[in-house]
Amino acid sequence: MLRLPLGSLLAVATAIGSAAPAGAGERLPPRPERSEAERDEHLKQLRAWYEAPPANWPKPVLDSEVDHRELGLVPKVSHPEDNPADPAKVALGKQLFFDPRLSGSGQIACASCHDPDLGWADGRTTSFGHNRRKLRRNSPSILNSGHRKALFWDGRAGSLEEQAAAVLNNQDEMHSADEVLVENLAAIPEYVESFKRLFDVKEPGIEQVAKAIAAFERTVVSRGTRFDSFLRGRHKALSDQELAGLHLFRTDARCLNCHNGPLLTDDKFHAIGLGMYGRKGEDLGRYAVTGRTEDLGAFRTPSLRDVDRTRPYMHSGLFDMDEILRLYNAGMPTERRRATDTRDIPPPKKSPLIKPLGLNKQDLADLAAFLGTLTESNSRVSPPRLPAGL
Amino acid sequence: MLRLPLGSLLAVATAIGSAAPAGAGERLPPRPERSEAERDEHLKQLRAWYEAPPANWPKPVLDSEVDHRELGLVPKVSHPEDNPADPAKVALGKQLFFDPRLSGSGQIACASCHDPDLGWADGRTTSFGHNRRKLRRNSPSILNSGHRKALFWDGRAGSLEEQAAAVLNNQDEMHSADEVLVENLAAIPEYVESFKRLFDVKEPGIEQVAKAIAAFERTVVSRGTRFDSFLRGRHKALSDQELAGLHLFRTDARCLNCHNGPLLTDDKFHAIGLGMYGRKGEDLGRYAVTGRTEDLGAFRTPSLRDVDRTRPYMHSGLFDMDEILRLYNAGMPTERRRATDTRDIPPPKKSPLIKPLGLNKQDLADLAAFLGTLTESNSRVSPPRLPAGL
Repeated sequence: MLRLPLGSLLAVATAIGSAAPAGAGERLPPRPERSEAERDEHLKQLRAWYEAPPANWPKPVLDSEVDHRELGLVPKVSHPEDNPADPAKVALGKQLFFDPRLSGSGQIACASCHDPDLGWADGRTTSFGHNRRKLRRNSPSILNSGHRKALFWDGRAGSLEEQAAAVLNNQDEMHSADEVLVENLAAIPEYVESFKRLFDVKEPGIEQVAKAIAAFERTVVSRGTRFDSFLRGRHKALSDQELAGLHLFRTDARCLNCHNGPLLTDDKFHAIGLGMYGRKGEDLGRYAVTGRTEDLGAFRTPSLRDVDRTRPYMHSGLFDMDEILRLYNAGMPTERRRATDTRDIPPPKKSPLIKPLGLNKQDLADLAAFLGTLTESNSRVSPPRLPAGL
Repeated sequence: MLRLPLGSLLAVATAIGSAAPAGAGERLPPRPERSEAERDEHLKQLRAWYEAPPANWPKPVLDSEVDHRELGLVPKVSHPEDNPADPAKVALGKQLFFDPRLSGSGQIACASCHDPDLGWADGRTTSFGHNRRKLRRNSPSILNSGHRKALFWDGRAGSLEEQAAAVLNNQDEMHSADEVLVENLAAIPEYVESFKRLFDVKEPGIEQVAKAIAAFERTVVSRGTRFDSFLRGRHKALSDQELAGLHLFRTDARCLNCHNGPLLTDDKFHAIGLGMYGRKGEDLGRYAVTGRTEDLGAFRTPSLRDVDRTRPYMHSGLFDMDEILRLYNAGMPTERRRATDTRDIPPPKKSPLIKPLGLNKQDLADLAAFLGTLTESNSRVSPPRLPAGL
């Protein structure tokens, strides 16, 4: 009674399936498990293949429309021309990122939903905003966000500056506004001084605040995971099982179709069947931004770096890792119109990249093990000293 | 530069060790690893032993002063006479637990630091309070807290009612007060009505609020873990490795000395060397409550139920699981006085229950695997509907 099993695979499968049973025969039975001897042989083969440079790795399984973007080390971030990098600006941005005085209530900082202790997200199903209002979506990590083309799950911001300003201005989120910020910041002499020096403004507003925060966010980058060590040639960094997971990730599990490149994301939008079309919690995703039918129920592919630290998963935050792997394996739900739904919005069309996989238990465990190598070992970011008010 | 490795074992060991090197020879070298054949034999033996009822399990390693309290299923919680259980009271308590209007800012609910999504804790090193002030200690989970004798890391509250009232009244935490609560609650007709019916008061204050919250908290109990399944006789619920970890937990790793009984805690206070005596972050723990020298640096033994979900660990929140296991294995730091420290407070005396263990890598992996069986599978608690204000 107390606990609702909303997050369980079963609940979602039932919720979606009861109205729209996925076509019978769509699922694949799990492929046979390898015998112990076959697995040993397979693992030996994988070692030989993957201890070569990535360019010589086995060909990935990619659908024809997908570019081959191999996994790799995260490159250096580039700063936009109209907001160049500058250590003083980054330091100011870090203070602002952790300072609740940017919010209307004086209680919510950027770091409230993007906390370094929680993988620069907040660990919650969906975040809480002003007056602890339950927001609609799961907080995405800001790790490596300086590399992303589009921000928010629906990509409605084209830069970190735009994203920060949107959250500050959102009355359900930080509940700020230019006037609130101007007034609050004017009472903090150290900030006034910094903004004057860095931006040549007497009264800092959302524009300058967002620039400083974005400059800081571009410094929040991966330092290196066990998988990165492996990529750098320290091949012992991955166990045999993790290597088996890497191979599956690139081949039979079809993950590389969307989770590719150094950040393990294509930075594109895909409908994968979890938009809860016509049901409680319906979220049509990118469609609300573009109005294009092909964007119905589509969400931005998340990066998988630090994935073990950024649970729960998906835009709704309703899933844990084992559930997500089982859902992908089953080919994800197919959303269909309910008889009672007379709206003009067609059901989201599931991406053709999503197909039932027929992986067995060992495969799923191998995949989860590989994903574990993408999370950095623990490190701590202390909140900075914040300047005193008047 | 951006990230401080405060949490790493090395940093703490260095920080404490540089002033007070632990006596040379105190550490034990890791014991030899078992050969594959020996391990197979050992695991077979463990199966035979542990598939018997717990009363017939191998004798645990317990120091003479420790009672034998075996691990087991969590019993039913009992409610105090002056705050009997009542479904309506529990339902009200749940609303209050999630309602930020109990706080001075209107932004912080009990659930802000004790979120079901985060194992009823907050996943942060230390929690944030009013005005997002960084608090001193890591937020403990409230799971099964109805069974605990003492609340808070230093045990300064003797009941959940007392604990809830203390957090509401604390000006650095919820920043409330009887007057604030009376005024805020009076504006919410549904609450006024409920308190009138349940407590026969016209103006509900902290006392009634705390009672309702405590009644709800007593319903937040373990539903059953894989280890519980094992205890109930479903012996396949634990893998061989997990069983090896259970055996270590009860024997050579000496965990059962403090982490015993159904909740895997003795509900006592122990100084284990992490009080940061004489250093930044010093926390003398229970001593501040009792003033007794033997309580210097002592903290309440946490329950290990849901331990995988309640990282980071210890009162300071500075550690992850691998670090804690390595610290225990090394016998924990011995805190000594620095030459420059002229205070009247002697260094905390480490509990004699803490001894270097000499466990090897396989042992530590086995232990971690066993601890993983103490966490419940994912379940979600939705925040309740909150009543509207006037």
